[in-house]
Amino acid sequence: MPAPPPFDADTYAARRRRLMEQLGSGVALLLGNGESASNYAANHYPFRQDSTFLYFLGLDCPGLDAVVDADAGRTTLFGEDPGLEAVIWEGPQPSIDALAQQAGLDDTAPPGALTETVQRARDAGRMVHTLPPYREAHRRRLGALLGCKPEATDDHASDVFIRAVVAQRESKTDAEVAEVEKALDVTRRMHLLAMQEARSGAVEREVAGRMEGMARAAGGETAFPTIFSERGEVFHNTPSAQRLTGGALALCDAGGTAPSRYAGDITRTAPVGGAFSQKQRAVYEIVLDAQEAALSAIEPGVKYKDVHRLAARHLADGLKGVGMMKGDPEEAVREGAHALFFPHGLGHMLGLDAHDMEALGEDVVGYDDETTRSEQFGLNALRLGRELKEGFVLTVEPGVYFIEPLIEQWRSEGRHARFIDYDAVADYEGFGGIRIEDDVLVTSDGGRILGEPIPKQPEAVEAAVGN
Amino acid sequence: MPAPPPFDADTYAARRRRLMEQLGSGVALLLGNGESASNYAANHYPFRQDSTFLYFLGLDCPGLDAVVDADAGRTTLFGEDPGLEAVIWEGPQPSIDALAQQAGLDDTAPPGALTETVQRARDAGRMVHTLPPYREAHRRRLGALLGCKPEATDDHASDVFIRAVVAQRESKTDAEVAEVEKALDVTRRMHLLAMQEARSGAVEREVAGRMEGMARAAGGETAFPTIFSERGEVFHNTPSAQRLTGGALALCDAGGTAPSRYAGDITRTAPVGGAFSQKQRAVYEIVLDAQEAALSAIEPGVKYKDVHRLAARHLADGLKGVGMMKGDPEEAVREGAHALFFPHGLGHMLGLDAHDMEALGEDVVGYDDETTRSEQFGLNALRLGRELKEGFVLTVEPGVYFIEPLIEQWRSEGRHARFIDYDAVADYEGFGGIRIEDDVLVTSDGGRILGEPIPKQPEAVEAAVGN
Repeated sequence: MPAPPPFDADTYAARRRRLMEQLGSGVALLLGNGESASNYAANHYPFRQDSTFLYFLGLDCPGLDAVVDADAGRTTLFGEDPGLEAVIWEGPQPSIDALAQQAGLDDTAPPGALTETVQRARDAGRMVHTLPPYREAHRRRLGALLGCKPEATDDHASDVFIRAVVAQRESKTDAEVAEVEKALDVTRRMHLLAMQEARSGAVEREVAGRMEGMARAAGGETAFPTIFSERGEVFHNTPSAQRLTGGALALCDAGGTAPSRYAGDITRTAPVGGAFSQKQRAVYEIVLDAQEAALSAIEPGVKYKDVHRLAARHLADGLKGVGMMKGDPEEAVREGAHALFFPHGLGHMLGLDAHDMEALGEDVVGYDDETTRSEQFGLNALRLGRELKEGFVLTVEPGVYFIEPLIEQWRSEGRHARFIDYDAVADYEGFGGIRIEDDVLVTSDGGRILGEPIPKQPEAVEAAVGN
Repeated sequence: MPAPPPFDADTYAARRRRLMEQLGSGVALLLGNGESASNYAANHYPFRQDSTFLYFLGLDCPGLDAVVDADAGRTTLFGEDPGLEAVIWEGPQPSIDALAQQAGLDDTAPPGALTETVQRARDAGRMVHTLPPYREAHRRRLGALLGCKPEATDDHASDVFIRAVVAQRESKTDAEVAEVEKALDVTRRMHLLAMQEARSGAVEREVAGRMEGMARAAGGETAFPTIFSERGEVFHNTPSAQRLTGGALALCDAGGTAPSRYAGDITRTAPVGGAFSQKQRAVYEIVLDAQEAALSAIEPGVKYKDVHRLAARHLADGLKGVGMMKGDPEEAVREGAHALFFPHGLGHMLGLDAHDMEALGEDVVGYDDETTRSEQFGLNALRLGRELKEGFVLTVEPGVYFIEPLIEQWRSEGRHARFIDYDAVADYEGFGGIRIEDDVLVTSDGGRILGEPIPKQPEAVEAAVGN
């Protein structure tokens, strides 16, 4: 039996009304996700509903689609009543009418009617709004519905529809923030376990596996692949069969979701064995200072690109303090020299997706007419650059890393030699990386870190190891 | 860094040589799997390589394909060397040549060359053998390679290729059996946890989540979605937020994989709280007797369809003993009356897939010219019917269930009223279901249960609860 929607039917009805207003006219397709095959058709990965479908309907089960008719002011849910076969194999299932009721709809139709509904709209010359597909199955279905090649469905996506969805999903209601905080409850427990297990000899994937089990046990899932590694400078490292080494740093970037699928996304970096070396502590404090500066700068009206730059300047200042950078930190950041150590963005939106709404297009979510994406290495990886608004939930995650192949390349090219002391950097070979990440709600006059605190001050992190 | 293949390069080379012999001529495409998007393109489910690709190449990472040229006696691996970007984000990656060496190949080509290679073979009028796709992405890629619609690629699959793959994969070597036993190590620990936690008040999904974490922690994955439920009569029940009730039965069907992806698949049924009621124990012993009878009957030359029937007769005998069935058990089974209680098959092949080779087609794996699939309800769900051979690994999993909607339907139709005492059956409303499953290797003269024993005798199961 699928879980009922986390919010009441009126919430979904109001969201769809606002969507219709913003669309103005035409029909909008909300295709639900199907099951996704792992190694054979009947062996599925855990079901994950499409996030925009969840946002407007709340129905977390496969086999559903919806058509929002902006002219008629009506939404139709397409799906099948469960047969005896389904009841035997899957247990009692809600009827399609019961699902419609949960989502605040009174119009339902069998799945086969979707093609006809779309065809009728196309025949009448009405606009058929679609979203960009991110699964092959949707590409194929959309191609069939729209009479085009599957590949062409990416280009067919409706800008008006995309912007209307982003306009609603970007600002979180109190009820949504409460769901993010539920996700952070389990995320926090996952991180406490990771810190506790940051002991010499601990096997990376054993710790990560247990963390993932916690996410599943809480009725959610991992919001993204768990990172728990002493190779923190490798951003998408898969937990390995390696054992942690005393004296190394264990970087853990992980998040669970609430049963409603709202996500948490936290990073902590702990010293394996429980004591930062002097060098580690110095870099840790540089990253922490940059994160705290960024956190303090968050408020409505501020561009997140500027917060990113502020954090970068704090990193450059700190790295100058320990002799790895030189010259004017402000100029170094303008030129992009700090990106040797911090080649990624300060953060991204968070909500039903860890990278919230990323399926709709990074730039439409993170940039606008006033703020465009930079082409400079490092800053070009920033997913969210535009002006913050009250209700945004976002991550704040600066870091400092020692990425050997990158250092080697820059050094051989003499890149930014005015700002980087490559000999000093060479002393940090094998250091790994440090990242500190929290999830923040933009309030009316600042930013509020969501969730119960997770050890972050160096002493608190040290104390959490092995406990 | 992806794990190296579990077997040495010669093993894979020998498997491909045998494949080439069986193909006779033409080229055979082994498409590797790519990443699979969850809620946006960059958020992947855990990577799962195609099992047949694993069998012939052992390379467990995305972005690879291979072409086996039966005429030239050569296999080419298509893939890309990692660039700096990949190294920064994913860490050190093996070169394509290093991968080829692990798999015993010396021929590599960039991914773009695959289209040309296939086109050249087609232009020369050579047979291009393909396997049935089970992911949309493969359907689309195959369609492009073969110049047909994605939907048409299912029909294009080569019978010769499919049979050649099944002929090798169906018989497990000692080294493969050892991998299944590694999978059973973690599977056993998962089940011991499930039994231990079969306590009144335990939340189903919390226990299942912890079990799943164990599978991940051991460097593998769950071989299929975990079932841990007091609604054991619902075959594909998703672990819920429900708490177990004292006096109920907790049915657990779960398996982990080895890091090599070989699967375990075990079912145990435990009394919540640790003591079977008299009724539960009676039914448990009926199922256990049927399983033991089936286990004893396994040997090369026996048809598994007959072993299924034997188990069914033991169930019918036992159910007659407790008054739920009547008449001649042999006749009841011939007529299919027992399928009210046991509507699924006795078992299936097990190997790199939990339902081994199911992607290649159930009937080609489980049936042959001598043994065809029955159309009778119950027996028609049997995945493996044909004559057993030494080296087969299969599951033995009889069960007895009380499926209310099915009972209601049969009773209202008076179906098999000669053999079923519906009034007696009504006394078992809410009983749930009992299934007992082991994984068995067909040896030269019998069957060997794989893995260390997992409590199965009723007293042992009772003792394992709450410990």
